[in-house]
Amino acid sequence: MAVDHQTQLLSKIAIGDGHAEASPYFDGWKAYDEDPFHPTNNPNGVIQMGLAENQLTSDLVEDWIVSNPEASICTPEGVADFKAIANFQDYHGLPEFRNTVAKFMGRTRGNRVTFDPDRVVMSGGATGAHEVVAFCLADPGDAFLVPIPYYPGFDRDLRWRTGVQLVPIKCESSNNFKLTRQALEAAYEKAKEDNIRVKGVLITNPSNPLGTVMDRNTLRTVLSFINEKRIHLVCDEIYAATVFSHPSFISIAEILEEDTDIECDHDLIHIVYSLSKDMGFPGFRVGIIYSYNDAVVNCARKMSSFGLVSTHTQYLLASMLSDEDFVERFLQESAKRLSQRYRVFTSGLAKVGIKCLQSNAGLFVWMDLRHLLKKPTFESEMELWRVIIHEVKINVSPGSSFHCPEAGWFRVCHANMDDRAVQVALQRIRNFVLQNKEVNKKPCWQSNLRLSLKARRFEEIMMSPHSPIPRSPLVKATN
Amino acid sequence: MAVDHQTQLLSKIAIGDGHAEASPYFDGWKAYDEDPFHPTNNPNGVIQMGLAENQLTSDLVEDWIVSNPEASICTPEGVADFKAIANFQDYHGLPEFRNTVAKFMGRTRGNRVTFDPDRVVMSGGATGAHEVVAFCLADPGDAFLVPIPYYPGFDRDLRWRTGVQLVPIKCESSNNFKLTRQALEAAYEKAKEDNIRVKGVLITNPSNPLGTVMDRNTLRTVLSFINEKRIHLVCDEIYAATVFSHPSFISIAEILEEDTDIECDHDLIHIVYSLSKDMGFPGFRVGIIYSYNDAVVNCARKMSSFGLVSTHTQYLLASMLSDEDFVERFLQESAKRLSQRYRVFTSGLAKVGIKCLQSNAGLFVWMDLRHLLKKPTFESEMELWRVIIHEVKINVSPGSSFHCPEAGWFRVCHANMDDRAVQVALQRIRNFVLQNKEVNKKPCWQSNLRLSLKARRFEEIMMSPHSPIPRSPLVKATN
Repeated sequence: MAVDHQTQLLSKIAIGDGHAEASPYFDGWKAYDEDPFHPTNNPNGVIQMGLAENQLTSDLVEDWIVSNPEASICTPEGVADFKAIANFQDYHGLPEFRNTVAKFMGRTRGNRVTFDPDRVVMSGGATGAHEVVAFCLADPGDAFLVPIPYYPGFDRDLRWRTGVQLVPIKCESSNNFKLTRQALEAAYEKAKEDNIRVKGVLITNPSNPLGTVMDRNTLRTVLSFINEKRIHLVCDEIYAATVFSHPSFISIAEILEEDTDIECDHDLIHIVYSLSKDMGFPGFRVGIIYSYNDAVVNCARKMSSFGLVSTHTQYLLASMLSDEDFVERFLQESAKRLSQRYRVFTSGLAKVGIKCLQSNAGLFVWMDLRHLLKKPTFESEMELWRVIIHEVKINVSPGSSFHCPEAGWFRVCHANMDDRAVQVALQRIRNFVLQNKEVNKKPCWQSNLRLSLKARRFEEIMMSPHSPIPRSPLVKATN
Repeated sequence: MAVDHQTQLLSKIAIGDGHAEASPYFDGWKAYDEDPFHPTNNPNGVIQMGLAENQLTSDLVEDWIVSNPEASICTPEGVADFKAIANFQDYHGLPEFRNTVAKFMGRTRGNRVTFDPDRVVMSGGATGAHEVVAFCLADPGDAFLVPIPYYPGFDRDLRWRTGVQLVPIKCESSNNFKLTRQALEAAYEKAKEDNIRVKGVLITNPSNPLGTVMDRNTLRTVLSFINEKRIHLVCDEIYAATVFSHPSFISIAEILEEDTDIECDHDLIHIVYSLSKDMGFPGFRVGIIYSYNDAVVNCARKMSSFGLVSTHTQYLLASMLSDEDFVERFLQESAKRLSQRYRVFTSGLAKVGIKCLQSNAGLFVWMDLRHLLKKPTFESEMELWRVIIHEVKINVSPGSSFHCPEAGWFRVCHANMDDRAVQVALQRIRNFVLQNKEVNKKPCWQSNLRLSLKARRFEEIMMSPHSPIPRSPLVKATN
């Protein structure tokens, strides 16, 4: 009994680390953090394009805040509510907050569907929401089927503490990574062969990293599939309001309401939502679980005690999101700015022959650099990635970190910076491509002319998509 | 493979519920929520004395907020930082926040010890902190030894999703519920007999529900014990700053620094802290894990992704807690007001012959009603509790919900109300006691003269100490 548990503890942590330890998705952050770009102070630094942040509309929010001092408990106009709000600890959340979030969810889905505030459950970001749903639906060893490429954080959020497994559903570039019935079946059968109990399918719509939305037929296919198999469907819709052009976003909620020809047990459907991407508030840790299953709502609400949203933040957002004019203006302007940014960035890339997957959502593009690979392998992808980060000095995320089944794809975020930084990034990419064309038919870095890269140790930096080095954004801002 | 998982899901939720399902600790909330006391609108309603909230010093915080508008990102003076703060998502937290929290932890321990900001890990309240520590230290089936009586939320926080067990360490009223070496050994041996692997001891100092602090000798005993057994020690110190009179609070950190004659492996020591009780901010969900073990710091920080503190709140608190003059004034005034409240309440009870355990901390008293029990059983305790809540109309928490080994004790919170409400509560208790004395030598409710209580169904209300019925504090305030 009296054993030294430290070794066990370390091995336990290592299991957690193992879920993402060699991921360049996380590794690239270090290069950025050590040498961050700044237009005047460090113009040759690394540009952070690995971060799916939405910074294009902060000014709208700031204007609203200054015009609505009563929305905060930290102003003379709002402080009278400070005591009640600071002490409020009901895990249902402020009723005003749940009501406005439900309404906002409807609005970001084009008001074609309504959400019941009593089914809105809070959690610590989408990170916490996914874990809670996994805890509710699965036991250790059970699995969810997930189309690849998928967000690397799922390997931590859904698996680490729950013991749940993720089984890839293979989607291919030849088909624009579309999810098919055949791929669903294949993944399901593979799991069955491996004696893995499948508890559900997890889809991300709009897709991270693809930036695409699922069409109605695909959603119908998924719905039919999970109903036939009697398994759950978890829909991550955290990028709902980032759709900036046609085709418009279709929530699973719409299919449930409208496509009544499909037999569907609503108890199997669960939506994960968040305000991190659509509003640009990742620091506020607002995750939402919306389940059509009463037992899941009940269970998730109890579990939400581990990751409630600060009432300080709930109060502010309840007020902000209840201003329908503001919400309308914000969403329209956000889509407009995202569309503009997408156009500028992809057309800049197109000028030097770089294509991206056609997309209309998200805070990123899925860039196709297959033609720049030495060989169509993930080793070559990593080699190219190292060049991009250390020579071109842009932090992007290679497809392999998203479990992409094909080498040569990169996710490039473009909404976390201003126009100037985008232009600098485009210029760097242009220089890189043109230089290679001029010097050599083969890209220069392939002929090893310029490179003397030290073999970089793939340090285990972190399990989290959050930045690994403690740095104050305030210090950053004044650097 | 294709099974209906709904039954499994329901049974899973039931397991969670089972951890606290018949607890009157939670049940009493319903009676309060259905008929809450209000001095003018509902003067005969139930007074909530089951809630360990610290509302005595909100005015000091409100004054500070109005005088320091730059501390909030929601004022014209602070809004320039809104974008950076809303987007900040580093799981280390704002450096300013960690630094000031470390300093505040030192201050609430009399500045006799210093804390390293790099060991401060955030979590979703103490609720989240306890779960993270359990996840880090133990595997399903492993156990922590916990002195009884203890906070009922531990049955959820530490056990539900981790599969960890809690083994009671028996403390007795004859010894003022003091923790002894003998009791520690007995609990440890019992677990051993039952083939349970003990991973640690969990102590709450200052104690909830007792309101007492541990003396140096007891802390030394615990430290020696866990070192001999090579098990961990988790110290819940969330009531550190509620100590309002001598003897002063001694943190485990002090013993580690000062009592160097005890052999102690610092890797075994972990502190759980929070701003919910000491500052009166339970809604803000600020939990802290402070571990002396690098591996635990590392692991807990990764797990903190599931329950980070909102940066909106971090920013405010970093500024507030860095104002050393304010902190000093706040802590002194808080202790003064708690002391005054304790004196008023306990002397009011003493006048009608009700004693409390002598204490000097916490937001409650441990009231001794053993003389009012029909029999010295928990059935009688529950019978008395029903009278208190439905006839006396005060929601208190019976000792059985804290796993108290002896019937007749009740935890009564007194810091979540104003002076008027305290006087009303005291008057009701007086009336109850005196009425019983006059009418009958035996308390009237024992002779069934007045009571026609319906057998109340002990509904499973909740697993959480948070209020079960969604109600806006704003609506409450204007009722």
